[in-house]
Amino acid sequence: MARWEPGARERLQAAALDLFVDQGYDETTVSQIAARAGVTDRTFFRHFSDKRESLFAGSEQLVTLFTDAVARSTAPDPLDVASEALAASTAFFPEERRPWARTRTAVVLANPALAEREQLKMVTIAQATAGALRDRGVEEPAATLLGHSTVTVFQVAFERWIRDGEDRSMGDLLQDTLSALRETLVPRT
Amino acid sequence: MARWEPGARERLQAAALDLFVDQGYDETTVSQIAARAGVTDRTFFRHFSDKRESLFAGSEQLVTLFTDAVARSTAPDPLDVASEALAASTAFFPEERRPWARTRTAVVLANPALAEREQLKMVTIAQATAGALRDRGVEEPAATLLGHSTVTVFQVAFERWIRDGEDRSMGDLLQDTLSALRETLVPRT
Repeated sequence: MARWEPGARERLQAAALDLFVDQGYDETTVSQIAARAGVTDRTFFRHFSDKRESLFAGSEQLVTLFTDAVARSTAPDPLDVASEALAASTAFFPEERRPWARTRTAVVLANPALAEREQLKMVTIAQATAGALRDRGVEEPAATLLGHSTVTVFQVAFERWIRDGEDRSMGDLLQDTLSALRETLVPRT
Repeated sequence: MARWEPGARERLQAAALDLFVDQGYDETTVSQIAARAGVTDRTFFRHFSDKRESLFAGSEQLVTLFTDAVARSTAPDPLDVASEALAASTAFFPEERRPWARTRTAVVLANPALAEREQLKMVTIAQATAGALRDRGVEEPAATLLGHSTVTVFQVAFERWIRDGEDRSMGDLLQDTLSALRETLVPRT
């Protein structure tokens, strides 16, 4: 019965975000999202377990981008491995995603429970990256310090990427932010 | 009617932790905690809003230790300001607190909702420290990068402090972990 509908997932995510902005997250129902996307409720639930997941689906892929890049890297220096992981994460942030990311972040920050979920997602990435570094022989405390620092750079670069008027790419901002972190920790005195 | 009972707060925290370990967090009631501490339920609620707060009370003071130290510092270099904030946080971790901290952390990590609460507490400290740095003129992205890095160092040092067999002080571990972070991010090549 249920056929695969091409693009339904993306249409549902866009419809959900439109409704969250227009009428508020709490006030929006799954049925409204499905109707706006022109699909049935069943199709919604084939893609997402609930309306919150329409905002957070993809988190696991982002974690995997980081951990796969760490596992795959041939760089001998852990810092270079982390830098490659940051570069790999740009696959998730192409230019055409920027307007959606801006709106999504505004919705998330306006709702404390969603903002907490977002923060915990960052912790998951930090811990997974630290684990991947340990798996390739990086010792503690370096692995955990580098896992957390990778996410610190990622978060700050992302905040810059979605700022109004910002037009540098996520890749440029990640490298610039990593340099800024290093300068912050080693002041020129 | 209700008199101030000296030491009741500490007795309640110790009783709560004992019961969480002995019979499980979910299975423990406020009345059991109060009875174990030899006080009434009313006395419990004068100190804590619920049983969870017996584990997390004091978080605000920890945030304040960081932000006050940043505001008070006379160091011109933001990194030194952060280092002073880390040193100030040791007031919260005297030697006699270490056994309690070990047991408390085991209880928190065994319960996903408590572990999330603990992570969000770290985010609060990072954001508050970044805000205090901005208040004294540190620019972005340095302020946010340093706020997050301060908490990264704090978290890793704390994990080391409560490890079985560890006997270095929290102050020593904080400075050692800060050095490790700097070496990890700026390797001497």
